Amino acid sequence: MAEATEPDRADTAILLVSCPDRRGIVAALSQVLFGRGANILDADQHTDPQAGQFFQRIRFDLTGLAGDRAALEVAIADVAGRYDMTWSLHYGDHRKRIAVFVSRYDHCLYDLLLRARSGELAGDLVLVVSNHPDLEPVAKQFDLPFHLVPITKHNKASQEAKEIALLEEERVDLVVLARYMQVLSPGFIERFPSRIINIHHSFLPAFIGGRPYHQAHERGVKLIGATAHYATTDLDEGPIIEQDVSRASHRDTVAELVRRGRDLERVVLARAVRWHLEDRVLAYGRKTVVFE
Amino acid sequence: MAEATEPDRADTAILLVSCPDRRGIVAALSQVLFGRGANILDADQHTDPQAGQFFQRIRFDLTGLAGDRAALEVAIADVAGRYDMTWSLHYGDHRKRIAVFVSRYDHCLYDLLLRARSGELAGDLVLVVSNHPDLEPVAKQFDLPFHLVPITKHNKASQEAKEIALLEEERVDLVVLARYMQVLSPGFIERFPSRIINIHHSFLPAFIGGRPYHQAHERGVKLIGATAHYATTDLDEGPIIEQDVSRASHRDTVAELVRRGRDLERVVLARAVRWHLEDRVLAYGRKTVVFE
Amino acid sequence: MAEATEPDRADTAILLVSCPDRRGIVAALSQVLFGRGANILDADQHTDPQAGQFFQRIRFDLTGLAGDRAALEVAIADVAGRYDMTWSLHYGDHRKRIAVFVSRYDHCLYDLLLRARSGELAGDLVLVVSNHPDLEPVAKQFDLPFHLVPITKHNKASQEAKEIALLEEERVDLVVLARYMQVLSPGFIERFPSRIINIHHSFLPAFIGGRPYHQAHERGVKLIGATAHYATTDLDEGPIIEQDVSRASHRDTVAELVRRGRDLERVVLARAVRWHLEDRVLAYGRKTVVFE
Amino acid sequence: MAEATEPDRADTAILLVSCPDRRGIVAALSQVLFGRGANILDADQHTDPQAGQFFQRIRFDLTGLAGDRAALEVAIADVAGRYDMTWSLHYGDHRKRIAVFVSRYDHCLYDLLLRARSGELAGDLVLVVSNHPDLEPVAKQFDLPFHLVPITKHNKASQEAKEIALLEEERVDLVVLARYMQVLSPGFIERFPSRIINIHHSFLPAFIGGRPYHQAHERGVKLIGATAHYATTDLDEGPIIEQDVSRASHRDTVAELVRRGRDLERVVLARAVRWHLEDRVLAYGRKTVVFE
Repeated sequence: MAEATEPDRADTAILLVSCPDRRGIVAALSQVLFGRGANILDADQHTDPQAGQFFQRIRFDLTGLAGDRAALEVAIADVAGRYDMTWSLHYGDHRKRIAVFVSRYDHCLYDLLLRARSGELAGDLVLVVSNHPDLEPVAKQFDLPFHLVPITKHNKASQEAKEIALLEEERVDLVVLARYMQVLSPGFIERFPSRIINIHHSFLPAFIGGRPYHQAHERGVKLIGATAHYATTDLDEGPIIEQDVSRASHRDTVAELVRRGRDLERVVLARAVRWHLEDRVLAYGRKTVVFE
Repeated sequence: MAEATEPDRADTAILLVSCPDRRGIVAALSQVLFGRGANILDADQHTDPQAGQFFQRIRFDLTGLAGDRAALEVAIADVAGRYDMTWSLHYGDHRKRIAVFVSRYDHCLYDLLLRARSGELAGDLVLVVSNHPDLEPVAKQFDLPFHLVPITKHNKASQEAKEIALLEEERVDLVVLARYMQVLSPGFIERFPSRIINIHHSFLPAFIGGRPYHQAHERGVKLIGATAHYATTDLDEGPIIEQDVSRASHRDTVAELVRRGRDLERVVLARAVRWHLEDRVLAYGRKTVVFE
Repeated sequence: MAEATEPDRADTAILLVSCPDRRGIVAALSQVLFGRGANILDADQHTDPQAGQFFQRIRFDLTGLAGDRAALEVAIADVAGRYDMTWSLHYGDHRKRIAVFVSRYDHCLYDLLLRARSGELAGDLVLVVSNHPDLEPVAKQFDLPFHLVPITKHNKASQEAKEIALLEEERVDLVVLARYMQVLSPGFIERFPSRIINIHHSFLPAFIGGRPYHQAHERGVKLIGATAHYATTDLDEGPIIEQDVSRASHRDTVAELVRRGRDLERVVLARAVRWHLEDRVLAYGRKTVVFE
Repeated sequence: MAEATEPDRADTAILLVSCPDRRGIVAALSQVLFGRGANILDADQHTDPQAGQFFQRIRFDLTGLAGDRAALEVAIADVAGRYDMTWSLHYGDHRKRIAVFVSRYDHCLYDLLLRARSGELAGDLVLVVSNHPDLEPVAKQFDLPFHLVPITKHNKASQEAKEIALLEEERVDLVVLARYMQVLSPGFIERFPSRIINIHHSFLPAFIGGRPYHQAHERGVKLIGATAHYATTDLDEGPIIEQDVSRASHRDTVAELVRRGRDLERVVLARAVRWHLEDRVLAYGRKTVVFE
């Protein structure tokens, strides 16, 4: 929502908090920020009465900050301690670093590359990883390093170790599975909790598993969907970030559903990635809070 | 699509055909109608290459008909024989007779009553059946006979027999399950093939079975849906006629999903009923062709 | 979002605030509430950088309130004074009183009556006003007083005076123009600023003025729309609260567009009314902030 | 809808017909095709009762054709003469040749290039024309000739003459204005009737003219739209082929509307282009018939 009169993104920070629901949380947080000269620009929160959990996203202006960031973090940590908060602080001058995993389909990769170039994403694509060589030219077109990591049933563990080393070396904040056709091992996934976003080409939980467009055609549904979710060790069961659908009819062949699905996958994945990069998503249990 | 220059609905007929796909079907049918002075107003068809099946809906004008309807039907039967067609002919001057089955929820019943009154439906509501007395006043408001048929696990067979007798006595063409909370027996369902429309309050095949809004809330989906389908002996597996969805978010409680779902159920059921009444729906296997 | 663990609506209040954007507003407001034992349940705010305006909606729990409501209001007024705020406080134990104005179309009236009965609306329909007798039976069905106020070009001023007297006598908080086919005079409208909601049967600002469905058909648009807005003295120019659209095609006659439009009008008007009743809408200039 | 059992697209043809509405048209056309051994695969038609016009799209299989194409065309011309038809015949083995006109925005160009590459379009991009050099690298990435034709108020006529010569030399069937920021002269437009598709970044007829996203933001609409239409000499008044919308809220700045609008423009333009390439669109007066 940047506008002329707004501070630069680089001068803002976002505080994400979740904790057991109690009285006075909102006041306590706004007070500690106000006391430090951090002007709140936006604050959104949510309470899940069933889980008894409180969630908040506060975006604030750092330009008037009294003291340094370390001091601010100490002050926040102090409040967090009192309220038993899980919290993370995201400074606008750190742009998240993104790795895109692909196989043979290029539509999601192209979409992310173009959005990044047009400045839509609050983060930078830093590398492309693939188990197939097919999309190397696409990465090259956009001057992005392309890492070919072929995977067989025998070398999976060692190849994933390579990928993890690469991600850590490149200080990657977010992994995007852009129609990556390999199942990541639990070890890989647990290494990046709520930091791996996958696009599934169905309206989950319908058509879990393989060939969802074939399943949809077989079942004769009148809508097809796509789902972006955080990858967890339960395949297709991770917290859903975004979903959308498109109409289908008896006239649509599987090929036509696949074609239309590409448009869905693109926009659904892009929204999820953008929201994550803007620190709008909090995952808890099998769910997400998305502060749009 | 009735307009000034169009013949009255009463002067039109609709021919629904399905048969193995072959050359010359379209020409053969249009020719037999043309030869009898039946002017084609609309024709729509579909071929399912996998099933090798051909489907067609032809709406034509009877005002110039040479000879009587019997003669026309003989001529059609002759072509149908040659092409191994399943066919049905629907005259515009016969308005379909509709029975609505309800339990305690009134939103779908009211919706159908109001649409019928406003002239939206090419059919007439002739009676309401319920296993609960709650909605009798609603039926009365609209001067519609209300039949209370309470169902227990012990009297189900005999009560369904009563209902069937009632439907036949009233020459009912279509049964609409408007949030009717009883499972019909296979015997009942097989009595009215592709003539019972049910509204399911989820985006089938997601959340099959009970309490779909609770399931949706539990799973944290970002869209909720509703599905209208022909009732078959496989619960929730009947051919889907129409589906639609509405956005959901972490803010939505189950109560809120239920509320929003009512709007979905209303419009999805109404579309399915309207299309069926206009002879736009052909069911085959687990699928439907909907000639919108 | 009422849930088991939430306070009853009657024990909550909503504070709506708008003021010039400045530092510390959020902290100041949350502090005054916290200081008075009012626990914030939800807070949402928005800054319009162009207008330099800040807007906030705070929903809080009154059960722990220290002192009485008057004292709370004094405390809020004090902060409001310092920040030059326009504010309003809405107690959950006051249900807003709604008057529905209609002419001959019944679909929006029925829709509001059914939503009120099913408990969807945080307010009570208290009377129906119409310039035609046609819908009196509908009001009667729902035991609602019906006031026939026929309007001619000669008696408009005196008849509007009667209506205003009626609204004040009945302490009406919100007037809903549910396809009311009369233009209200500026005097009437200015009497109820941001308290009259109208449903316009087009996607404003397209097809301003009369017969929008005819205009839409004439223009060959592929979507039709409906718009709910606050009535202002500039016809069809009031702040838009909600809009939605539905697909149209070359097959749709004006009659079909009108039919589909009824569904749109219903849901769009209902959303706008619900949001207003829940104190989610702040109008400023030609725009609204809707805290969904 | 190509499937295994279907003839190759190259072995099919599409007949588009429009004529005054009369009895027997459908029979006459299906008969002439049947008589020539052309098996009808799909036929769709529409009657506009107000205009008294009949429209039909027939897709048929050429593999069993008795005699050559010339003979078929003679036979069709004969029927066409009797019914005063305007008709065109499109053979599947001729792929339409497309020129894309752009200025500085790359999103629609990239989208068309990627769809063409993925085989979505029943036509070939053959050249890119621009009044700015900016997008030459994009065209080059996809090995497409890029023609820079800068336009000033003084050289417009001569530059357009160059463009027309280029289009004719390249035997271009369709011109796509993919956010081309120049107004074409009437002379240019009349040269390619119903063969120039433009994408307008608003929900026409709302926000005609410049800076529609600014207009939308200014007006506070809750939906933004995009419109694909055939270019005519009345700016923004051409027959609409497709439209779609996306939700907007008070939180959306103009920049955000522009960003979301890019997604809309992409899909709306792509649908219109695809339908045109598949000979599904018939323009008449200010309207289109789209045989989806």
